[in-house]
Amino acid sequence: MTESYGTLSPTPRLLLGPGPSQIAPRVLRACATPLLGYLDPEYLTLMDQTQTLLRTVFQTENAWTMCVPGTGMAGMEAALINAFEPGDDIVICVNGVFGERMVNVAQRAGARVTRVDAEWGTAVQPDQVSEALRGVKAKVVAIVHAETSTGVLQPLEEISRVVHEAGALLLVDCVTSLGGIPVEVDARGIDIAYSGTQKCLGAPPSLAPLTMSAAAVEAFQARKTPVQSFYLDAGEIWRYWGPERAYHQTGMINMLYALREALLIIQEEGLEARFARHRQNQQALIAGLEAMGLQPAVADPALRLPSLTTVLVPDGADDQAVRGGLIAKYGIEIGGGMGKYAGKAWRIGLMGYGSQRSNVMLLLSALGDLLKNERVDEGLAAASAAYTA
Amino acid sequence: MTESYGTLSPTPRLLLGPGPSQIAPRVLRACATPLLGYLDPEYLTLMDQTQTLLRTVFQTENAWTMCVPGTGMAGMEAALINAFEPGDDIVICVNGVFGERMVNVAQRAGARVTRVDAEWGTAVQPDQVSEALRGVKAKVVAIVHAETSTGVLQPLEEISRVVHEAGALLLVDCVTSLGGIPVEVDARGIDIAYSGTQKCLGAPPSLAPLTMSAAAVEAFQARKTPVQSFYLDAGEIWRYWGPERAYHQTGMINMLYALREALLIIQEEGLEARFARHRQNQQALIAGLEAMGLQPAVADPALRLPSLTTVLVPDGADDQAVRGGLIAKYGIEIGGGMGKYAGKAWRIGLMGYGSQRSNVMLLLSALGDLLKNERVDEGLAAASAAYTA
Repeated sequence: MTESYGTLSPTPRLLLGPGPSQIAPRVLRACATPLLGYLDPEYLTLMDQTQTLLRTVFQTENAWTMCVPGTGMAGMEAALINAFEPGDDIVICVNGVFGERMVNVAQRAGARVTRVDAEWGTAVQPDQVSEALRGVKAKVVAIVHAETSTGVLQPLEEISRVVHEAGALLLVDCVTSLGGIPVEVDARGIDIAYSGTQKCLGAPPSLAPLTMSAAAVEAFQARKTPVQSFYLDAGEIWRYWGPERAYHQTGMINMLYALREALLIIQEEGLEARFARHRQNQQALIAGLEAMGLQPAVADPALRLPSLTTVLVPDGADDQAVRGGLIAKYGIEIGGGMGKYAGKAWRIGLMGYGSQRSNVMLLLSALGDLLKNERVDEGLAAASAAYTA
Repeated sequence: MTESYGTLSPTPRLLLGPGPSQIAPRVLRACATPLLGYLDPEYLTLMDQTQTLLRTVFQTENAWTMCVPGTGMAGMEAALINAFEPGDDIVICVNGVFGERMVNVAQRAGARVTRVDAEWGTAVQPDQVSEALRGVKAKVVAIVHAETSTGVLQPLEEISRVVHEAGALLLVDCVTSLGGIPVEVDARGIDIAYSGTQKCLGAPPSLAPLTMSAAAVEAFQARKTPVQSFYLDAGEIWRYWGPERAYHQTGMINMLYALREALLIIQEEGLEARFARHRQNQQALIAGLEAMGLQPAVADPALRLPSLTTVLVPDGADDQAVRGGLIAKYGIEIGGGMGKYAGKAWRIGLMGYGSQRSNVMLLLSALGDLLKNERVDEGLAAASAAYTA
């Protein structure tokens, strides 16, 4: 026990990758608030407030709205394993890493998975889902709203219609959309939606918001077998978040403080203004990148995520050297490509508190420097113009 | 979105229940430190430091030492489901709520569970474990080191010998012992141990330290079936904590900051001094309670947990009124009884930063007030004497 590690003093970073995103100072301060007990009436009130604020951002009136005690990945696993029983058929749409991961999670838990695959950089088509549902009586169709690996925004309305016509539940990964892009759980007929706190919500990674429609709860309550996991059992988590207030696990007090504060910021800004801000900063970023000759990985502008832009690594550029240079010279973190995009694309997140004009302009100028791009001026001008359009 | 919830400003609490425990100011401040990315080299260094500090407090040289991304309950579930495959026989010792919960978790995951039951307030005997292991070829024997529901400290040495003679792995719940009581993973031959951050370690609830012996890792790697959970798969978690640095989930950055800071405090204090402090404050508390005529729920002094004292609610006292009065008049939280002890015992935690002489004296005087106890002076004197003994 002689090694000494010194004071915690990380080098400042501007987090413009796929998450965690930048955190507002008042959210960070909330993390350091002294603890209440996890059954203290004051704490239960803070949970209730968080729940109400989550319903607003999910755009739902679902009673069963809660936080799974883990990161977005815990949300994914909880959403899936509570939605089916071993041996059930489910359909999973795959057009990136997180669709693949849903397949992994569902198969481990004993689901019979039918895949619907689409090319990376494109969206899944309703016809594909229809066809899959003609071949199998699926209990659930799972799909990613905002694919963090590809930057694709998945249209949901038509797929929701198809899924419900087949009598299945619609399960949607909203990890990179919630709080930055309309999720509209009720309007779109989403039955199960989950997210993470560290993307557009603007809180530290830790909790996974989860909401379930009345139909999803009914299906859950009609299960013939217990959920394979106690920790991720939505019924057990609801016993704590709902009126019963039973002990499930020790609440992540400080992380709930932070999430509540982040949700209050959303309430103050207003959802529509927040969505518009995310869209405007993304459009400015893309205008700047394109003016500098860079190419978005998602060809169709309508499918580009407001919260996460994938851009192809230009010919002749060294992926790792550029990302390393951004960190070393500017303290800026962007994400490398994942899976099929490894070494081929960068992932730029403009999420929550990080979705700011100043971050767009700084990143464009830093990329221009590191790429020795001769059209930086044009890029900055194009980005600026996007704010006055 | 019109309801306004106001500023986060919880009423100050002195947390002397079963957890979360009091958090040192510097650990709280660490929570509010701006984030690094979860694969930032600086962050990976902080993870490595945390891992080294965890090995010290677990008293182990196990390579596989990591944090499960969830509370102590996630640690329990991860420890169990990585240790057996569906259909395997396991033995679970039950003498309180957390042993019961291990049975629940293991049965959901498909284990064939043989129970070894002992009375609440007592320890499990090695002979009981021997007998169970004669009846079944168990892969794992699971037991709770510090039963938070009863206040019993479970002796492990003899049971460890019995378990290993039978060729089984020893799995130990150290949630309420790690950082306050010697765990001695290597010396006692513990194969799998898990804990939580919010008890004697003195960090907020969020992460579950987990360590696995070479034998446990070998058994894990020889599995014929994948672990049912991706989120809690020790191999996947190790891919992030070990040399590979693969993406498993977004690290709980701020909570790791806090845990590292709490572990540094332990390093500075020294394990032996810390164990002695926990023991001394508990002895003072018990001396005070007994002098006031209250009776510990655990009859055998050798089995009383240094970190958590259970005391019987005295005849004529109103459980809820006393605990409510402690909160309302003094801001002190203690725990009510769980399970068989509901309404019959109180649970007083003196853990980590909360294990302080001033807290002992304040609690005794507050209890004296609320119980209208006429021997408070004797209680305080007895407690004081314990510090000079």
